[in-house]
Amino acid sequence: MSDRRETDLTRRGFLQTAGGSLIAAPLIGAGVTTAAAQVPDIKLPAVGQKRARWALVGLGNLAINQVMPAFAKTEKSELKAFVSGRREKAETLAKKYGVDPKHIYSYDNFDTIANDPEIDIVYIILPNSMHAEYTIRALKAGKHVLCEKPMANNVKDCEAMIAAAKAANKKLAIGYRLRHEPFNQTMIKMARERELGATRHISCEAGFSIGDPKQWRLRKPMAGGGSMMDIGIYALNAARYLSGEEPVEVQAMSYTTPNDPRFVEVEESTVFQMRFPSGLMANCTSHYGAGMNRFRVFAEKGSFELQPALSYSGLRMQVYRGGVSEERSLPVRDHFASEMDHFSDCVLMGTDPLTPGEEGLRDMRIITSIYESAAGGGKTVKLT
Amino acid sequence: MSDRRETDLTRRGFLQTAGGSLIAAPLIGAGVTTAAAQVPDIKLPAVGQKRARWALVGLGNLAINQVMPAFAKTEKSELKAFVSGRREKAETLAKKYGVDPKHIYSYDNFDTIANDPEIDIVYIILPNSMHAEYTIRALKAGKHVLCEKPMANNVKDCEAMIAAAKAANKKLAIGYRLRHEPFNQTMIKMARERELGATRHISCEAGFSIGDPKQWRLRKPMAGGGSMMDIGIYALNAARYLSGEEPVEVQAMSYTTPNDPRFVEVEESTVFQMRFPSGLMANCTSHYGAGMNRFRVFAEKGSFELQPALSYSGLRMQVYRGGVSEERSLPVRDHFASEMDHFSDCVLMGTDPLTPGEEGLRDMRIITSIYESAAGGGKTVKLT
Repeated sequence: MSDRRETDLTRRGFLQTAGGSLIAAPLIGAGVTTAAAQVPDIKLPAVGQKRARWALVGLGNLAINQVMPAFAKTEKSELKAFVSGRREKAETLAKKYGVDPKHIYSYDNFDTIANDPEIDIVYIILPNSMHAEYTIRALKAGKHVLCEKPMANNVKDCEAMIAAAKAANKKLAIGYRLRHEPFNQTMIKMARERELGATRHISCEAGFSIGDPKQWRLRKPMAGGGSMMDIGIYALNAARYLSGEEPVEVQAMSYTTPNDPRFVEVEESTVFQMRFPSGLMANCTSHYGAGMNRFRVFAEKGSFELQPALSYSGLRMQVYRGGVSEERSLPVRDHFASEMDHFSDCVLMGTDPLTPGEEGLRDMRIITSIYESAAGGGKTVKLT
Repeated sequence: MSDRRETDLTRRGFLQTAGGSLIAAPLIGAGVTTAAAQVPDIKLPAVGQKRARWALVGLGNLAINQVMPAFAKTEKSELKAFVSGRREKAETLAKKYGVDPKHIYSYDNFDTIANDPEIDIVYIILPNSMHAEYTIRALKAGKHVLCEKPMANNVKDCEAMIAAAKAANKKLAIGYRLRHEPFNQTMIKMARERELGATRHISCEAGFSIGDPKQWRLRKPMAGGGSMMDIGIYALNAARYLSGEEPVEVQAMSYTTPNDPRFVEVEESTVFQMRFPSGLMANCTSHYGAGMNRFRVFAEKGSFELQPALSYSGLRMQVYRGGVSEERSLPVRDHFASEMDHFSDCVLMGTDPLTPGEEGLRDMRIITSIYESAAGGGKTVKLT
């Protein structure tokens, strides 16, 4: 029995990586500098260590179990405010994390954050269908926004969010946490630098067995779709960042187990294939009925793989070359702490986020085409 | 540096598994019995240990490096004859393997094997385009035939081969060696018995970086196609035997690197997706430009994988469940010895081969549909 970690069968368990304990490690690179400025959006030399102040919108599992604890590992981010429909829950958490109750907002008085100068950034951790509305309201309130992925439920909402950020002259980033952790960053670097030669093929698989049939992720109006929206987006986004290209064609097939109470409104699984301008192809799978957690780049002289690839911790890398495989050790970082510190830094230093609204929009356009192909007998859909 | 074996970059190296030494082990199960009969095609109780006598047609790498040495590990098979265009080469090999020179045939006098009562079985190890002709001639000469895969270059030839076997009342089997070795057999058993619950998804990847641009595998008229015909057929066949179902729909995309001297006539890579009657989907990749060697079954409670999955030796199995993985050890068998002994037994006992001509025809029909989908903008092709 080795300790090679895979998935367990719940979403949280899956993403947390069974058996994977979180190891605190120093933050490294990726746009995180030690300089800081007093005034957002203006580049100034460092004047001591300033932290951007965050409001969390939505106090669900992700916020409670991942995001809140991550603040203790940040260097540039401070948990300052909550927005929740449940005052009592918010107060309990505020006490735990030292949030002043005056910074607790409801969805009704949410827009008054405009008058709270102690909030710099709003982090949207709501069901997908609410992303657009709350992102736009936060931007209109003069705050920068980090919004969880998928960015929204359709392309039009994504475009409206980007337009709102431009109109408000505020920053908008989408929560692609894997772009902020060393294993996925190293995969990208190995592919770009052709450590094993040119990339020939990419395979990305993301899935877990979803639980409670009543959760919002299984309600089409709230989730926008099934596994493809929620977990397949990891495979899609990885195929894009590992290739370094934007797909020009997609084709897909979906399947949903009949009479499974979980899949009354949304699809269970989607297999999708993408062709990139260089000709490179990616073969991807998204699943709500089976655990899968692996990205692999096949290059001329060997291949390199993450498995688990997308869990919150415990990622592992194997490099296959010349008939043997080698595990590559990398520093461990809290994905959320790194992601938040990166965005804090962008806000403090006036720099651009690694995954702006346009990144979320690109995925949404491709997901729309994937659903179109799957619904249309698998016919290739061209992307422009 | 672990000893997890992957591929190296030549076809032979790939299939031989770098670092994998062959361990002799007793033959186990799979239709191999200890009984034998004197008269082919009639079931009789055993009268001592009789071996079926084999003629090899085509003395290329596979015949020389894999098939000939495998006879030493058989219990029911005897290397008796060669058919070759190169007399001198045949004589050298005959000396090495104790083949009487009177059993050396050329392609010109091939049909006179009809008059050689010491040949029971003819094993066709020729380029794909020659399979149909030599299989049919061997059947007409009154011999049973094991033909390498792919069975032929098109459906029509496969059908003619099956008809010839029926007309001659002789057995025809196709060389799907993985059906005769314990790792793939155990994968099938685990899926059928639902050891980890019902199968939810199958992923099969088969590829290697092909070498010499002048080899017959890269000539369309001889090979019938590119990687899909030669190595992708492993992924296709595995998806079928792991699912236990026949696909009802396929869709595919192909890609060939421009200006690569190896791919002037045939395609480099094909990604293909199959839907089975139960709804189960398989996502597969075939490649001539990168090493990939893995079959995985994703089930409700975990997944199980072979990697390498299709090398001549050194296969390894991982079972992933509940957040950990476990390597499963299995007996090692010579694939070719097991395959030949199985067919010898069929001939001696009058039983049916595990992979008859109809099995090769099924793959050929699906490959034809895969090429049709790839050529037709990825549109789903329905199989009947």
